[in-house]
Amino acid sequence: MTSMYTINYALRAHKRDPFIEFIKGMLMTPFVLHAKPIPPKGASTDKDDINVEENLMDANVSRYCDILTSIEELINEHRRKESKGVAEQSRLKRLVPSVSTFHTELPLRKSFLLANAKHSIAARRFVPPSFNDIRRILNTAQIIAIAPKLKLITFDGDMTLYDDGKDFEQDSALVNLLVKLLEFDLNVCVVTAAGYPGDAQRYEQRLSGLLKGFESARLPKKICERFYVLGGECNYLFQCQENYHLKYIPESEYQPEDMLSWSEHQINAILDVAQETLKRCIDDMKLPCTILRKSKAVGIVPQPNVRIFREQLDECVLSTQHYLVSYLKSPSGKQHSLPFCAFNGGHDVWVDIGNKLIGVQILQNFLGATPAETLHVGDQYTKTLARSISGSLEYCGQGRYCGQS
Amino acid sequence: MTSMYTINYALRAHKRDPFIEFIKGMLMTPFVLHAKPIPPKGASTDKDDINVEENLMDANVSRYCDILTSIEELINEHRRKESKGVAEQSRLKRLVPSVSTFHTELPLRKSFLLANAKHSIAARRFVPPSFNDIRRILNTAQIIAIAPKLKLITFDGDMTLYDDGKDFEQDSALVNLLVKLLEFDLNVCVVTAAGYPGDAQRYEQRLSGLLKGFESARLPKKICERFYVLGGECNYLFQCQENYHLKYIPESEYQPEDMLSWSEHQINAILDVAQETLKRCIDDMKLPCTILRKSKAVGIVPQPNVRIFREQLDECVLSTQHYLVSYLKSPSGKQHSLPFCAFNGGHDVWVDIGNKLIGVQILQNFLGATPAETLHVGDQYTKTLARSISGSLEYCGQGRYCGQS
Amino acid sequence: MTSMYTINYALRAHKRDPFIEFIKGMLMTPFVLHAKPIPPKGASTDKDDINVEENLMDANVSRYCDILTSIEELINEHRRKESKGVAEQSRLKRLVPSVSTFHTELPLRKSFLLANAKHSIAARRFVPPSFNDIRRILNTAQIIAIAPKLKLITFDGDMTLYDDGKDFEQDSALVNLLVKLLEFDLNVCVVTAAGYPGDAQRYEQRLSGLLKGFESARLPKKICERFYVLGGECNYLFQCQENYHLKYIPESEYQPEDMLSWSEHQINAILDVAQETLKRCIDDMKLPCTILRKSKAVGIVPQPNVRIFREQLDECVLSTQHYLVSYLKSPSGKQHSLPFCAFNGGHDVWVDIGNKLIGVQILQNFLGATPAETLHVGDQYTKTLARSISGSLEYCGQGRYCGQS
Amino acid sequence: MTSMYTINYALRAHKRDPFIEFIKGMLMTPFVLHAKPIPPKGASTDKDDINVEENLMDANVSRYCDILTSIEELINEHRRKESKGVAEQSRLKRLVPSVSTFHTELPLRKSFLLANAKHSIAARRFVPPSFNDIRRILNTAQIIAIAPKLKLITFDGDMTLYDDGKDFEQDSALVNLLVKLLEFDLNVCVVTAAGYPGDAQRYEQRLSGLLKGFESARLPKKICERFYVLGGECNYLFQCQENYHLKYIPESEYQPEDMLSWSEHQINAILDVAQETLKRCIDDMKLPCTILRKSKAVGIVPQPNVRIFREQLDECVLSTQHYLVSYLKSPSGKQHSLPFCAFNGGHDVWVDIGNKLIGVQILQNFLGATPAETLHVGDQYTKTLARSISGSLEYCGQGRYCGQS
Repeated sequence: MTSMYTINYALRAHKRDPFIEFIKGMLMTPFVLHAKPIPPKGASTDKDDINVEENLMDANVSRYCDILTSIEELINEHRRKESKGVAEQSRLKRLVPSVSTFHTELPLRKSFLLANAKHSIAARRFVPPSFNDIRRILNTAQIIAIAPKLKLITFDGDMTLYDDGKDFEQDSALVNLLVKLLEFDLNVCVVTAAGYPGDAQRYEQRLSGLLKGFESARLPKKICERFYVLGGECNYLFQCQENYHLKYIPESEYQPEDMLSWSEHQINAILDVAQETLKRCIDDMKLPCTILRKSKAVGIVPQPNVRIFREQLDECVLSTQHYLVSYLKSPSGKQHSLPFCAFNGGHDVWVDIGNKLIGVQILQNFLGATPAETLHVGDQYTKTLARSISGSLEYCGQGRYCGQS
Repeated sequence: MTSMYTINYALRAHKRDPFIEFIKGMLMTPFVLHAKPIPPKGASTDKDDINVEENLMDANVSRYCDILTSIEELINEHRRKESKGVAEQSRLKRLVPSVSTFHTELPLRKSFLLANAKHSIAARRFVPPSFNDIRRILNTAQIIAIAPKLKLITFDGDMTLYDDGKDFEQDSALVNLLVKLLEFDLNVCVVTAAGYPGDAQRYEQRLSGLLKGFESARLPKKICERFYVLGGECNYLFQCQENYHLKYIPESEYQPEDMLSWSEHQINAILDVAQETLKRCIDDMKLPCTILRKSKAVGIVPQPNVRIFREQLDECVLSTQHYLVSYLKSPSGKQHSLPFCAFNGGHDVWVDIGNKLIGVQILQNFLGATPAETLHVGDQYTKTLARSISGSLEYCGQGRYCGQS
Repeated sequence: MTSMYTINYALRAHKRDPFIEFIKGMLMTPFVLHAKPIPPKGASTDKDDINVEENLMDANVSRYCDILTSIEELINEHRRKESKGVAEQSRLKRLVPSVSTFHTELPLRKSFLLANAKHSIAARRFVPPSFNDIRRILNTAQIIAIAPKLKLITFDGDMTLYDDGKDFEQDSALVNLLVKLLEFDLNVCVVTAAGYPGDAQRYEQRLSGLLKGFESARLPKKICERFYVLGGECNYLFQCQENYHLKYIPESEYQPEDMLSWSEHQINAILDVAQETLKRCIDDMKLPCTILRKSKAVGIVPQPNVRIFREQLDECVLSTQHYLVSYLKSPSGKQHSLPFCAFNGGHDVWVDIGNKLIGVQILQNFLGATPAETLHVGDQYTKTLARSISGSLEYCGQGRYCGQS
Repeated sequence: MTSMYTINYALRAHKRDPFIEFIKGMLMTPFVLHAKPIPPKGASTDKDDINVEENLMDANVSRYCDILTSIEELINEHRRKESKGVAEQSRLKRLVPSVSTFHTELPLRKSFLLANAKHSIAARRFVPPSFNDIRRILNTAQIIAIAPKLKLITFDGDMTLYDDGKDFEQDSALVNLLVKLLEFDLNVCVVTAAGYPGDAQRYEQRLSGLLKGFESARLPKKICERFYVLGGECNYLFQCQENYHLKYIPESEYQPEDMLSWSEHQINAILDVAQETLKRCIDDMKLPCTILRKSKAVGIVPQPNVRIFREQLDECVLSTQHYLVSYLKSPSGKQHSLPFCAFNGGHDVWVDIGNKLIGVQILQNFLGATPAETLHVGDQYTKTLARSISGSLEYCGQGRYCGQS
């Protein structure tokens, strides 16, 4: 019923994940007290220095492990409290009030040891475990924990599988990886904001590289049919066929009743308000943009070779969201209340009816996967989604990890 | 005598420029109190609404202008106090203790009006003037102020004029812009960390696109000779010739006496300590890197197709810097004390003898330009440099602005 | 249903009132930009200097006034949004998310001018408007706004009207002030945690100085009967009689039905858990304390001449609260759920059944006063109370103001 | 040359001691991870629960001890680096840049165990080690460390030994404690800002209770003569005689040469500027105060029964300090440069020539005590003093501890 875009520019501090900051803080204590610089070789004549040094490193590893084990226990206690309906009483909740649901345990110690083997975290004496280190450890722990039960893996499109606004390229290393996931009997779904109502060809074009990859790999029918595309956040579902083309699935086959009841009248009432506000933003800020209206979305798109500044795109999003929320709470708007999603797409701004949270839930119902059997991999930290209905993992095609809990 | 790399990982808060944060805070007051959302059209029957709205916007512009004018006055008072040798008594210094020297006035109001004309800053009701807005305003103000007297403009190489480790491409839009600067009778110099002792060809290759651009533009001798390249931070100077090739200038022609007295023995003593520490880092963190020793630098470079994580590169830098500073303060090291510079190059780590601060000062002496007649344009916020010896401007070839005061 | 004591020691930052901090931040802008030190007299030969200075001061006054007027508008917009049930959409709510209900307008500008006349706030050039300045301005504004409609004024006892654990002294300047309030036709009530079930004499002793003051002033019956005492947070009500003694009022005459239904069984179930936890705290920390059990309260009191440290009292409070909340959410505890209040009394710790929030609401119903006609004056910032059911004012007998919004 | 009063109102965050905050942060890790609430008794049927609980407590003690031992090592490394003249390279200095000199080791572990025995710090599960806990631990550690070598112990007067502006009372528990210190062969000196030039009687009156205590205890001559009073920060020295009266000691007998050379002309030049500024503050803020000029001080004192607000006193201090510093840096002021001290005395404001830092140094020279043999006990956190020339301890007569490192 509300948008997921709730940044309050005037207030927000630098964006940090409080859970990651908490872990970072805990690991800082052994770093500060024990990961000391080693005296330069010249300063010592002791033959055993190298052994001392190695023991020191091992001691650091074991101190970091102790702390991560304790955090695993905090997570477990939180999960127990949550299963009893008193999550707000968990010690972790009191320490990190923004912490949400963990659908699985998180083997942080094991994950740290893997990361340390690769990146020698415990050998560092000047750079303590960083935000990125901890995000990687959390991601790996999530994968380790969910792997045995995993049924459904969903991916953001733009910025995760391919560059923003671009098509999936055939030479992408991701092709083989996605093929492998399918061969492991997993359902794989790309959940994208891009909305081309019922237009399988457009989605095939965006995913051309991947579909060609399926063809090259000669994926059999059974495996092909485990690959889905959900467009317009949650509005257009397609399934891959054995001919490596996408087939549109009618809404009535997979949408829940309350969603099937969304009327065109309601949708248009919301989009009309959004469009009016976007128009006003364009006028007020004299933006060289045009408005694009679709059946379940409205957006503004810059004229060719024009770049709109981030602050201006954000102004459009926040402004639209503000007026939409006001409208949906007003006497005349209440009856049209539907979930929507306003977002800054990097170059453009869109207001969609529905959102990815609904999208993934639809897929879970359709494919029979619980949150603890679902993993969402996204480029952005879509908190609500990630935390409330699935395990989650944030990974960019570019090899950058971008925020996760 | 000291390195410029003094980040303390364990302590530093999120990197912010305190002067920009100060301006942001001042502008927040009118934003918060006055840049209110306008009631949606339906809510009003008043014909004059549009006028009201426009007046409101104009009032915001004038409020922002008032504040920027007041900040101009604070800068002017600071410059007056500084010219009397009591900079620490200025009101601005008390408000922003990290504030340094301003070599020119900064016409912030004028610069804001230019920015506002382009980006409608005052029309925004949800997104207050941002860090990036203010950086742009400061950059523009610096250019406006220094333009009439400008004699020397220096540029960082990698990440400013061309991508990291790449060559200057001929089709870069920057070619024409640099040509124009030269035609305005300015001395233009690329100051780069890349060190190829006396090897004009290597620098020509890195700058190939630009030099070809000079050729295409048929720049006459007089203009060509205003273009310089200073490599190895401050160690190898080249001048462009009318044949569009670079000519090495012997150190004796431009280096000050104290620099000419740097002995090979001193240099090697420092580089030996650096090399030993880097070796140790490679061993401790098992980095797949090799050590490269040059005449005035030592560094570590990853093996092909390997990517070293930022945290590990930083560990190398901080560790090396720590041991070098210790060494140069020790009884045996004191006699070898020279300025050095340890830095994370994104993919590699280098310790250079000398630094860009010295480099720009050498050019100022050689070409007869005072700090108030010099502008340094860089991709990174090299504070000491930017603030103490020149006006400064931070601009990336990619069109991103990256930090400035 | 929950305690009001929710401090999370491990997390809380320094206790600040965010609304006061917000106002402070807004006033900082004109202070920083305009309240400059005036050049020493010697530095100027201008006869008109004094006039300049005075004008400057007047300009500061008017700048501060502008800002406070704008904040008044934010409060008014918040009140309008609140009356429409969409308080969360107000601009003030977005700026200060913890802001709650304002039962009246707050004439901040007027209040500032009064404060400035006394304390020359705008004449200061080195000390900006402080937390205490703003709290005083808010307090005065609240009094100005509520005075015309005021029907009921309630006071905390200890620390507000008399020293902690002491009796009201007859020579207290507060006697005459309270008499005046009564003569203005106001209902005055002391709401105290001190619980002496039905024991009028004990309360008369605590308030002896005040009651003697009534006698000396020969207050007539009608006026005497406007004075009440509510003990045990909300459990024992007394009314003053024309003989200047307190008369117990039976619960059935004033308590709402749901409260009359609190059973002894429920009360004891809660107090038993509290007592067990307090006993455990005493044992664990080896506190030289004894446990005191009353009909609607249980507490720990130190042995004579012993002082328990604040941290230890807080540990008792937080621990007891933690286990009580757990208990009341457990299957066996749910049926006994009653409001309670655990607090650190400075020297002792108490768990009371009921709380002052309920106490003031009972009085409002009994005496026919709405929140906008009620003012609570307290020594501590009892947020829930202050903000949700009355105007509020925090004033200590010692002349210190102690936090308010 | 400069005042010690350097608070920048516009900038300072909440006043915290960074070293105490650092220790608090380190101890938070074991608190958060291990000091968990124990399941309520009902929840367990295990007989061994009490043992488990006790072991848990012991484990917490040992975890806190480990951390404090590590901090002792950081202090020791800092002291070693300092003795080599490279204090800025110590790990502690990098972690807490404001950390200064430690004249002794600090046995934090031992001190914690003493504090824990009294206050059961490790038994707390909801209240982590607090600022006050750590200050007490630091104070105790300082006393333990300095006791064996202690020669000179100095005390602040007002707020430390007696209430602000009051006399030392004979029934104060401090009388016997001070007598004991003298009997231990220590030199004891009260260092007070109160300045009564050469007037032994006035100081005798202020200390009447203490001197009578000496008489009651029949302290012999040798012991009496170890008691000193230093008034006016550093300007008037008195020694106790066997008749329990104070004897003035002429400046020439104990003041260093540079101090003896302070001329009346210099002193008056500074006091004139201070007086003019204070007069201006009185006028601007219309303060009901009178100016008091003494031979080495000037101040403002409120009229009887008037209370000046803290903000206004601070404005006077900061303003006076600002103009004095400007004056002493100006061409005409440079020649009169003497150390001074401007401070808010709670009810009044004073500018003194000299300061307590100089005062304690004079005593050290006169009585032959090094910093490591001197302990200063003060009510306020006079950083420079405490950290640079003595061990230090902050203790109030009222039993409150008030800040120390």
